[in-house]
Amino acid sequence: MWSSDQMSRSTTQRLLTNKVRAGDATFVHDDLIVEEPLSIQLDGVLVASTMRTPGNDFELAAGFCFTEGLVGLTDVRGIRHCGRRSAVANEFNVVKVDTGGRVPTPKARLSLMSSSCGLCGNDSIHELAERVGSLPEYEPWDLEFLVSLPERIAGHQPLHDATGAVHMAAAFDRTGDLVVAREDIGRHNALDKLIGRLMLDGGLPSTDLALFVSSRASFEMVQKAWAGGFTALVAVSGPSALAVNTARRSGMTLAGFARQGRANVYSPVPSSPSMNASVDS
Amino acid sequence: MWSSDQMSRSTTQRLLTNKVRAGDATFVHDDLIVEEPLSIQLDGVLVASTMRTPGNDFELAAGFCFTEGLVGLTDVRGIRHCGRRSAVANEFNVVKVDTGGRVPTPKARLSLMSSSCGLCGNDSIHELAERVGSLPEYEPWDLEFLVSLPERIAGHQPLHDATGAVHMAAAFDRTGDLVVAREDIGRHNALDKLIGRLMLDGGLPSTDLALFVSSRASFEMVQKAWAGGFTALVAVSGPSALAVNTARRSGMTLAGFARQGRANVYSPVPSSPSMNASVDS
Repeated sequence: MWSSDQMSRSTTQRLLTNKVRAGDATFVHDDLIVEEPLSIQLDGVLVASTMRTPGNDFELAAGFCFTEGLVGLTDVRGIRHCGRRSAVANEFNVVKVDTGGRVPTPKARLSLMSSSCGLCGNDSIHELAERVGSLPEYEPWDLEFLVSLPERIAGHQPLHDATGAVHMAAAFDRTGDLVVAREDIGRHNALDKLIGRLMLDGGLPSTDLALFVSSRASFEMVQKAWAGGFTALVAVSGPSALAVNTARRSGMTLAGFARQGRANVYSPVPSSPSMNASVDS
Repeated sequence: MWSSDQMSRSTTQRLLTNKVRAGDATFVHDDLIVEEPLSIQLDGVLVASTMRTPGNDFELAAGFCFTEGLVGLTDVRGIRHCGRRSAVANEFNVVKVDTGGRVPTPKARLSLMSSSCGLCGNDSIHELAERVGSLPEYEPWDLEFLVSLPERIAGHQPLHDATGAVHMAAAFDRTGDLVVAREDIGRHNALDKLIGRLMLDGGLPSTDLALFVSSRASFEMVQKAWAGGFTALVAVSGPSALAVNTARRSGMTLAGFARQGRANVYSPVPSSPSMNASVDS
């Protein structure tokens, strides 16, 4: 029912490039990642516009609406492109998600933050916790296993291998098998596509999966991972303080700077005999 | 008049971390970059919400409104935080930009892309060109100079040095002097803060400055650079195809993968005796 909507759309484009280094210049044709605008409509209301790499747009739309709390796991009744497969190429740049009125009239994502005098980081965590709830108890993740994830994506990054300028999100089971991976010029989009795929396959919450992302771990990445029910998030680059505090609140295992057989584990709060974690409050 | 609004707000937070590598774990206190939500209101209308590192919020708000085409260079009459410096910390997470009605009633950024059947990349370039116009003629940039920019930021990245997880935008003049630099957890924010600073100082358009960014060069980064009048953009990572085509349309010099004394120059279209650039059309 929820087949992929890749439809052979171009994800890379070949352009002439001048490669410069001291005293030398060569002209080559380079493959560059494609970036196109996508508008997401939920029950007829525009809820998001994003610059993304085309393909897997239905997953992206479903994943976005779910991770942002606009729809529940089973609310979506249909997903389609704007037009009716006419000759208009742009029709692929609007995706319509339909719930048949099962969700409240959607608000644009922007409006989610319209309280009169602003939110602080703790408010953001509190709102998220109210919406998503804590993660269930889970078998602790083996840290050596989490540290190994960056090596396990080799061979699964075709767009990165071609262009060098694309983000990846990948979900692994506890045996180290890659369950699903998505690439996109935007790190949020790659994660929304991955979560959307799992959602449409009935695979959420992902309590027994570890999530790997090729980017930093910002608040929004932890938010999406938490909404998807992932109990571990491993990022190649570093987390923000808010991301760490969000992961700790959720119960998620969060590792950053995962490179070359090392990582920093920020959540849950490390417990060691010699240090008191209360200094972090 | 337009002093900085840094106000000694925290930009890093110290948290306990477990550093893991094969067969070893160490507990340390790490400095993490602070991330907080910011809402930007223009003449009382919420136009954007962004997760940013606090500080230089007035620059960020002004720069965002300008690079997104919501205000012109001289429209802004006042910028302030939401509250009146009461004890409410959150008041620093809403910035109000006031033009005294000099600009059309603003629309949220989201609404800028609400045409019924979507935009394609070429539409995005066309809209931008209509709004901003081509860059003026400029003295060609020395490619060896542009390739040197990544080395010139050493010592100017205090937040990156402390946390390892932050983006930077920096503007250099033709002698290689750093004119202004900004760091933020978000690459768009770092650039908006930089452009906002120049704007509030009357320093736009930046025709004789080269812009360096520590990130990829996506469409939106080129869009902001173009709006600011920069004639050169140098990115540490790669550009998207749309970013290259946008830079070529604007006349901007665009280099990517600028690392270790090398770079790829994508715009203007490389001209070499042996290759025909028309294959890129």
